[in-house]
Amino acid sequence: TKSYSITLLPGDGIGPEVISVARNVLVLTGATEGIEFKFQEMPVGGAALDLTGVPLPEETLAAAQQSDAVLLGAIGGYNWDKNEKHLKPETGLLQLREGLKVFANLRPATVLPQLVDASTLKREVAEGVDLMVVRELTGGIYFGKPRGFKTDRNGEEIGFNTEVYATSEIDRIARVAFETARKRHGKLCSVDKANVLEASMLWRKRVMAISLEYPDVELTHMYVDNAAMQLVRNPNQFDTIVTNNIFGDILSDEASMITGSIGMLPSASLGENGPGLFEPIHGSAPDIAGQDKANPLATVLSAAMLLKYGLGEAAAAERIETAVLDTLDRGFRTGDIYSTGYVLPFIHSSPSSLLPR
Amino acid sequence: TKSYSITLLPGDGIGPEVISVARNVLVLTGATEGIEFKFQEMPVGGAALDLTGVPLPEETLAAAQQSDAVLLGAIGGYNWDKNEKHLKPETGLLQLREGLKVFANLRPATVLPQLVDASTLKREVAEGVDLMVVRELTGGIYFGKPRGFKTDRNGEEIGFNTEVYATSEIDRIARVAFETARKRHGKLCSVDKANVLEASMLWRKRVMAISLEYPDVELTHMYVDNAAMQLVRNPNQFDTIVTNNIFGDILSDEASMITGSIGMLPSASLGENGPGLFEPIHGSAPDIAGQDKANPLATVLSAAMLLKYGLGEAAAAERIETAVLDTLDRGFRTGDIYSTGYVLPFIHSSPSSLLPR
Ligand SMILES: CC(C)[C@H](C(=O)O)[C@@H](O)C(=O)O
Ligand SMILES: CC(C)[C@H](C(=O)O)[C@@H](O)C(=O)O
Repeated sequence: TKSYSITLLPGDGIGPEVISVARNVLVLTGATEGIEFKFQEMPVGGAALDLTGVPLPEETLAAAQQSDAVLLGAIGGYNWDKNEKHLKPETGLLQLREGLKVFANLRPATVLPQLVDASTLKREVAEGVDLMVVRELTGGIYFGKPRGFKTDRNGEEIGFNTEVYATSEIDRIARVAFETARKRHGKLCSVDKANVLEASMLWRKRVMAISLEYPDVELTHMYVDNAAMQLVRNPNQFDTIVTNNIFGDILSDEASMITGSIGMLPSASLGENGPGLFEPIHGSAPDIAGQDKANPLATVLSAAMLLKYGLGEAAAAERIETAVLDTLDRGFRTGDIYSTGYVLPFIHSSPSSLLPR
Repeated sequence: TKSYSITLLPGDGIGPEVISVARNVLVLTGATEGIEFKFQEMPVGGAALDLTGVPLPEETLAAAQQSDAVLLGAIGGYNWDKNEKHLKPETGLLQLREGLKVFANLRPATVLPQLVDASTLKREVAEGVDLMVVRELTGGIYFGKPRGFKTDRNGEEIGFNTEVYATSEIDRIARVAFETARKRHGKLCSVDKANVLEASMLWRKRVMAISLEYPDVELTHMYVDNAAMQLVRNPNQFDTIVTNNIFGDILSDEASMITGSIGMLPSASLGENGPGLFEPIHGSAPDIAGQDKANPLATVLSAAMLLKYGLGEAAAAERIETAVLDTLDRGFRTGDIYSTGYVLPFIHSSPSSLLPR
């Protein structure tokens, strides 16, 4: 039997409970597909701060780097909100992305037929939405230097950050995006603010240059403000979107909310080589943590992405995806995707309902 | 009779036609209210590029600075899209904002009862939305230095921009936002990315400091990615939003699309003193320019904001707002807000329908 090492990073809030469901799903899927998983659980985020004083302990990063793939729950919570920057849970996540060099963040936003009514958008607008945001994850204003605080010439305090992209950073994320679009519906929309920002002008120039390698993919460009509008106006116009770190943060969250099922959406973060990082796009939801209310499906689907993109185990991944759809078809719902339009009463989804048949 | 000088900047695309409607509305309103307007039309954007070779001629800026208020149509078009940065129509707009020192951009997003079906959001979500985005307009990454292109240590080309805010810049926009919230429903939500960006950390710190001057206004904070989601999930939770230049660009466009009537939405840009700049939030729509299809109401309502915020002529402003509502009540619609849900057939809105009674 094949064997893979998986680092599990439960993190904070609902992280531990959704990770525990996903772990069970992986074990069961593995048993059917002849795959063995060796799990190692490590602390990150607030949990790591409480335990070790830092949001990403060296041991956690080392374990993650040495494994075949990393599955993360969620990070953050009220307790640590007032911490200084280097002691914020979020800083641990950023260090993890940097440490694993996962520059390509794939965030699907799909409206499942079973859940179309969960969207706040009209049925005819939401129906059929199936887009993928490819977000640059280890560059731009998130990591750009110089950054910090200082006193300017007038004796005033200023806070500053640098939005910066190098040609090679743009080229590699563009290639991932074109490859992704090619495997989907062959349409790529690059989002920038090239009418104002130099970093965006270089972005657009390089994306156009790389597009010559992908004549079969239809490339368009859109300004970020317009993209934020178009996602609301007609999300069905999009297939694959590629954009920088901060615009990707904003637009992928907007896109996910358009589906109405943010508790359902997984993500994959990939590097050139080395293990990928897989996590639900939802947060740590401290208000419902530990109450068995959280929707585990985003993490379960992240485990599916882990199998597909991280380990190349497409058949096992599909098995999980099918199980999730089947679970929904059978009427199981958590509160976040429960809507009065359904025939079946509210039933908490349970790990066993995800059993691959 | 009172007399004011107004600089009209028709600009590009549908700009001239919507400005001409708004001008007529101002004249008619002035006749009723005993106000005289002296108009001066000046070129800006692509029109100015074609005429003078620069997107904001000195004469245009000087005229604007010397007048009591400035009314702008729209800027930009395919012809100039490939221009270098300093020869882009958009650059003229940025220079105008900078030259007039209009640091506070007020962008209302209101769902009128008459137009609730124009939104792509479900009726129960869109109904009653009435929010105001207060966007910082002359700072942040739009104007921050250093910016540009260079070759880095590895011989690679990089493009970079600086997101930067000084205490005084944050304080003054925060005060405008608190004052605005106070006159509305007393709720202010400050949007930032303080979990990642130092510029946002200073932003949050100063907004909290200024909030001490406004104990009657309820202040909350939200990360920009969450704000992009919450606008889709439940836009009715917002009263007044304050945010930086780039986040304001994105969120105000998203908010406007949520109303479904972007052809209806005005904006005001104000400085400490000196003339304000008033413009519809929609673009130049070159595809429908010159065909008498454009919705002039955003510009007409911008003229109302000009009267109210720019000249302190609240009664005249209200007269225009009432006329706009009356026009809608009487069933007049342009294509952008026409929806099959209406009883009356499609009739082009015309200036005379805006006659204040
Ligand atoms: C928690 C935060 C640092 C993070 C980000 O901004 O990247 C989150 O919003 C995300 O999108 O994964
Ligand atoms: C045209 C462009 C420079 C401008 C901006 O980004 O500010 C526009 O999008 C706006 O919001 O007024």
